[in-house]
Amino acid sequence: MSQLTVIANIIAKTESIELVKAELIKLLAVTRAEEGCINYDLHQDNQAPEHFTLYENWVSRELWQAHMANDQLAEYVKATEGAITTFTLNEMTQIS
Amino acid sequence: MSQLTVIANIIAKTESIELVKAELIKLLAVTRAEEGCINYDLHQDNQAPEHFTLYENWVSRELWQAHMANDQLAEYVKATEGAITTFTLNEMTQIS
Repeated sequence: MSQLTVIANIIAKTESIELVKAELIKLLAVTRAEEGCINYDLHQDNQAPEHFTLYENWVSRELWQAHMANDQLAEYVKATEGAITTFTLNEMTQIS
Repeated sequence: MSQLTVIANIIAKTESIELVKAELIKLLAVTRAEEGCINYDLHQDNQAPEHFTLYENWVSRELWQAHMANDQLAEYVKATEGAITTFTLNEMTQIS
């Protein structure tokens, strides 16, 4: 098992920026307490406030996948239904 | 002065992946030793190896701008001329 970096980019609809931000913030403490989570940091773009980035490192892809199946994430998806324009997710390896 | 997160996405031409990777790696130690650099971490996409991401945190935007004007970065730009397809850079604020 090797460490996994995940970079998630979430673009909120302009009228839903604060809703999406609040829902993303709700995920932080719960996720950071999960098995295998090294860091889970939320950012907002300075020029485009509708753009949020989660920068995540996990002990293994398996433990990240367990996180992806959890209840909190399902609640986030439900709460932000119709509020997101685009969502992309990249699985990466930290070179150094 | 507030802390700045920078996310740089570099897409290399398929035939230049190893060249670009080597040049990016050369930047790491020098940059990490610069004033104001909190972290400067290089990643490669697991599905698209031509995609590199630098995840950076700086003490202030001013110190990041001083970094952007340094000789090492100018050498990187020269060495990777013609080897990059796209380059994007986002200035962000870490919410938590």
